[in-house]
Amino acid sequence: LGEFMLKIWNFLEKARNIAVAEPKKVIHCLKVGVTLTIVSLFYYMRPLYEGVGGNAMWAIMTVVVVFEYTVGATLYKCINRAIGTFLAGSLGVGVHWAASHSGDKLEPIILGISVFLLASAATFSRFIPSVKARFDYGVLIFILTFSLVSVSGYRVDKLIDVARQRLSTIAIGASLCVLMCMLFYPIWAGKELHNLIHRNLEKLADALDGCTAEYFTDSSAGDSWKKIGGYKCVLNSKAAEDSMAGFARWEPAHGRFNFRHPWKQYLKVGASLRSCAYCIETLDGCLNSEIKAPELLRRHLSDACITLSSSASFVLKELATTVKTMRKSSEIDFSIGEMQFAVLKLENAMKSLPNHLVATPSSTSDGDAKAEPIRKTTTPSSVMDILPLATLVSMLTETAA
Amino acid sequence: LGEFMLKIWNFLEKARNIAVAEPKKVIHCLKVGVTLTIVSLFYYMRPLYEGVGGNAMWAIMTVVVVFEYTVGATLYKCINRAIGTFLAGSLGVGVHWAASHSGDKLEPIILGISVFLLASAATFSRFIPSVKARFDYGVLIFILTFSLVSVSGYRVDKLIDVARQRLSTIAIGASLCVLMCMLFYPIWAGKELHNLIHRNLEKLADALDGCTAEYFTDSSAGDSWKKIGGYKCVLNSKAAEDSMAGFARWEPAHGRFNFRHPWKQYLKVGASLRSCAYCIETLDGCLNSEIKAPELLRRHLSDACITLSSSASFVLKELATTVKTMRKSSEIDFSIGEMQFAVLKLENAMKSLPNHLVATPSSTSDGDAKAEPIRKTTTPSSVMDILPLATLVSMLTETAA
Repeated sequence: LGEFMLKIWNFLEKARNIAVAEPKKVIHCLKVGVTLTIVSLFYYMRPLYEGVGGNAMWAIMTVVVVFEYTVGATLYKCINRAIGTFLAGSLGVGVHWAASHSGDKLEPIILGISVFLLASAATFSRFIPSVKARFDYGVLIFILTFSLVSVSGYRVDKLIDVARQRLSTIAIGASLCVLMCMLFYPIWAGKELHNLIHRNLEKLADALDGCTAEYFTDSSAGDSWKKIGGYKCVLNSKAAEDSMAGFARWEPAHGRFNFRHPWKQYLKVGASLRSCAYCIETLDGCLNSEIKAPELLRRHLSDACITLSSSASFVLKELATTVKTMRKSSEIDFSIGEMQFAVLKLENAMKSLPNHLVATPSSTSDGDAKAEPIRKTTTPSSVMDILPLATLVSMLTETAA
Repeated sequence: LGEFMLKIWNFLEKARNIAVAEPKKVIHCLKVGVTLTIVSLFYYMRPLYEGVGGNAMWAIMTVVVVFEYTVGATLYKCINRAIGTFLAGSLGVGVHWAASHSGDKLEPIILGISVFLLASAATFSRFIPSVKARFDYGVLIFILTFSLVSVSGYRVDKLIDVARQRLSTIAIGASLCVLMCMLFYPIWAGKELHNLIHRNLEKLADALDGCTAEYFTDSSAGDSWKKIGGYKCVLNSKAAEDSMAGFARWEPAHGRFNFRHPWKQYLKVGASLRSCAYCIETLDGCLNSEIKAPELLRRHLSDACITLSSSASFVLKELATTVKTMRKSSEIDFSIGEMQFAVLKLENAMKSLPNHLVATPSSTSDGDAKAEPIRKTTTPSSVMDILPLATLVSMLTETAA
């Protein structure tokens, strides 16, 4: 029993940590609670039709299913639900009408075939990436509404009445959700995406700094390890970026973002960031390998390497502020030039190496192997990746600012 | 208009390609269609209660919402739906009873507060990773059912009657889904995960082969490029692996997999695979860089490099068959030994380099820079990554076989 209590205690502890770390989430929960209470009590106080068994249920259901963490996701679900319900409803009424006018024997056959065909086709369309990204929820609602309507036992004129009532309750629930979502502490998917990209840029810069410092100063302080570890979450942020960009598309203009803000550019920047992170991963692997370069060689290259990595991380930080302020920094071109100069300097340092190699022929091969990847991986992360990244970001700021 | 027709044509073309590439998906769609038709017509033919407005609706809704692509996902949703509905239903009836016995004034206050508190708490619990992974859908259903039940206008004795009917329709819908899902062409999440890992291992082996062949033979045949590109989808497979492992947990024993198959091991193998893929990404970056090694140096190292990479990719293929057959291959230890020997051989080749360097001091620094990362990245992908991977896989096969 004590073990069970301990488990529960740990669980509560974890929950408390989440709440402290992100108070936004707590606010979201309170918003959901308030909205649901309002809708429930509204329909409880004046049972418009016949209590929960009737249509009031649809308002509550809409609130529970549609209210999401970000404004974009809520809007996506509301709009999808509205479109899906409307299309399926009208189609369903049509099929229902056709079936009811074709005799008692044909009626179930027509209904069955139409449900089968439309459900299969709609389910299949959910596998198509372009439909999945934008209308996944809408298609689900389409299938649901269509089969409910077309199989309903009502006569057509009563059916239209039911549909009207049901649509109005759904509309009330959905609009209440949207209002609550957008008016009180709105959490915009676009802004979250923006912050994520900006944070990831800074994490990469820190990791690059940390790696070089760790390697060349041999200070195994716990602080630098924490810094280096930051890049790891850049590696796995693709899914979060994709979904947020998908939701951000549905959001209206907010803050410094317009309605047709180029969210896809963020995905491209994210992809570049990830390939930078792969380089840093390799760099980190070299840092942890057993093979160590000899002191001599390390000292020879350390200046050039440190210059290069600090200028590269400076560029990354510069890009981070560029993304943050959405304004092209005046220093960015200059610092990219500086970085390229640092690359040349390191290349020169590499070329002057063979003189040392002659002096210490056997031991340097390992050292070379050690120092080389640093240069090599710093180089792609600077020249190969940052240049497209820089053009991307300047593109982004040009379209946005 | 012609443009619009073209768009539709492209869309249909894309859909057809998906259908041809994965006929499983088409079968899944047909299964959904058949199940939905059966449920709809069943309730249409004998309107048990009062037509679709009543409880038959819940059967249709359950089928639409619960029927997922894999067996694991369907079971996850069914079990979650059952648990959520049951818990929330009993709690809701309790609150409803308490509220209805506390006077007309207190009643809405008690109801409102209970809905607010439980909805907020349940929404918050969805942010806790361990709850999200296993019970996300169940919590949603809990909120929905609780607010529906506690706010319903029925008297308690009638409420229990309604709840019983509703539960039975949900049970009919859910069990029909599970039966259809498991009896006709079942698609097991566990098997899909197994195949994904196995395919990814093969792709990595191909990419490694392709990279070395590309670099050392200079044959820019289109075929090898296609091979190399295969590793890119390994980089982004984390989300798919996570969700499939989550669903696989719910599946009963099937094929060669037991109920408590160690699915988490697959995630660890997947993580190792991804770090291999990062290495290959860096290797690929070196392949595409402008700096080319001089012919002399390339020839000096090519033998050792080719041996190493072919033995590494042989190990990967060996691991792939190990995963596929779930039986520890007898050759695996031997081929890992061979790979380590190849690493030593390459290191020796590196050590004998300085002699060449003396002959061509200025031009080799570039060449060195080019050849080094190959060794370096092949080394981690062999020694650093494959060794833990090998232990992991042998662990896996020991627990599984």
